[in-house]
Amino acid sequence: MDGSWPLMRDHVIRWSECDLYGHVNHAAYLTIFEDMRIAHWEALTGLPISPTRPGPVVAQIEAKYHRAAGFGEKVVLGSRVVSFRRTSFIHDYAMWRDGVACCTGRAICVVTRNDTGEKVPLWPDLRAAMLAEGAVAEG
Amino acid sequence: MDGSWPLMRDHVIRWSECDLYGHVNHAAYLTIFEDMRIAHWEALTGLPISPTRPGPVVAQIEAKYHRAAGFGEKVVLGSRVVSFRRTSFIHDYAMWRDGVACCTGRAICVVTRNDTGEKVPLWPDLRAAMLAEGAVAEG
Amino acid sequence: MDGSWPLMRDHVIRWSECDLYGHVNHAAYLTIFEDMRIAHWEALTGLPISPTRPGPVVAQIEAKYHRAAGFGEKVVLGSRVVSFRRTSFIHDYAMWRDGVACCTGRAICVVTRNDTGEKVPLWPDLRAAMLAEGAVAEG
Amino acid sequence: MDGSWPLMRDHVIRWSECDLYGHVNHAAYLTIFEDMRIAHWEALTGLPISPTRPGPVVAQIEAKYHRAAGFGEKVVLGSRVVSFRRTSFIHDYAMWRDGVACCTGRAICVVTRNDTGEKVPLWPDLRAAMLAEGAVAEG
Repeated sequence: MDGSWPLMRDHVIRWSECDLYGHVNHAAYLTIFEDMRIAHWEALTGLPISPTRPGPVVAQIEAKYHRAAGFGEKVVLGSRVVSFRRTSFIHDYAMWRDGVACCTGRAICVVTRNDTGEKVPLWPDLRAAMLAEGAVAEG
Repeated sequence: MDGSWPLMRDHVIRWSECDLYGHVNHAAYLTIFEDMRIAHWEALTGLPISPTRPGPVVAQIEAKYHRAAGFGEKVVLGSRVVSFRRTSFIHDYAMWRDGVACCTGRAICVVTRNDTGEKVPLWPDLRAAMLAEGAVAEG
Repeated sequence: MDGSWPLMRDHVIRWSECDLYGHVNHAAYLTIFEDMRIAHWEALTGLPISPTRPGPVVAQIEAKYHRAAGFGEKVVLGSRVVSFRRTSFIHDYAMWRDGVACCTGRAICVVTRNDTGEKVPLWPDLRAAMLAEGAVAEG
Repeated sequence: MDGSWPLMRDHVIRWSECDLYGHVNHAAYLTIFEDMRIAHWEALTGLPISPTRPGPVVAQIEAKYHRAAGFGEKVVLGSRVVSFRRTSFIHDYAMWRDGVACCTGRAICVVTRNDTGEKVPLWPDLRAAMLAEGAVAEG
């Protein structure tokens, strides 16, 4: 739980997130992080995500599974924008139990128009909001 | 579709794999690749995956989304073991449409006893099966 | 496996379909049946399902869980149109293992324009295709 | 929102719950209701759901889709035990938006030992807790 995580949220592991092994399935973490990405984006832009507005599309994602989490466990989720460039940003995610990371993730998100697939430059207010949260401008 | 992919399979994009954007959701690829990991593991070991036998646990995964795939599209899936060490292996995945990659993935899998969480060394027959498919022994 | 099932398909239970209890999750059956509904609709109409064409929307669904199915098991899926009215039809689903039903389902599907939500009367060719498969016209 | 719903919970429709049509997928409601079933069961029994304790297994479920719900919408979820017999109970679910039902569901749940599949009679405290919430004893 090192560093600053502008968005944090409590979560209780759902039945549907667990698989035969009795733990959160590796793919379920990505859906959990997706909720954080959307909530964070809406907080940064002040607008709901919508297919009719430019939004973040995941171009690349990486997840590291540090320790298993089980059904019903109380965990904390966090996300932060690490850095951004002209049309993309790096978004970090984490899930902790008792302050210890179960899973950490990093996505490269490209801001995209859903109808045309065109990349959209981060607008000044969005860049300012990211900077205010501690993100680094790299382009 | 470069190189050799010992396991390949046809797939048609399912309704349940697509999201509001009309494309395969980024997390759905991981579940599609999970099917390949399991099928490939079963082919390599000659035994079904079971919670009562050592099996591959994903310690880390990475996915790159090259182009969107849409509902009903016919795609090809592939997986290959790139390399292995004493208790782990690197597993690559890909989905192609018309020979062009939509998504590629790479997992570090640790062979684990599900009951104790203990790492299990890859046994000689398994190493031999991986070598026979072109994987590189790195430990 | 009583009666006639115009659409039948083999299926192997996926890891992602099973939950902590080690069996197919009750909701996963609905997604499996969804694949049958879509494939069956496409066979009956001769056209792919698309958000831009009228398609079947589930207005009501019922599932009965007769016996559990487990990971890796080989099962058979079936669907049939039981009857139809002016804008709707009753669609039955089943999953069998060794000829014995694990789960049966019944949906009332309304043919709907996705953009307006308007109900669309079943067209003559569609009614004829359903009749040819043994469905009963009730309106 | 007629009648009494002992368990109610706010919910915001998640991206992962919506499909290509832009609405909550019909199967996703069952997973949402599953969360209610588990939470309600835990409240009634005072114990977490666990594969090592008798728990509710869905023997039959029915869902009616009254109106579509879309991504990001704020809804309310409710569940109530309608009635119970020796080893089973009827569990009702609903999702409302602005006080109007989007989806209602009804499950017949059988209390079952997961290891043996044996049915377990509802114990006196559990029956009392259900009665206290307004459920009707039918056996």
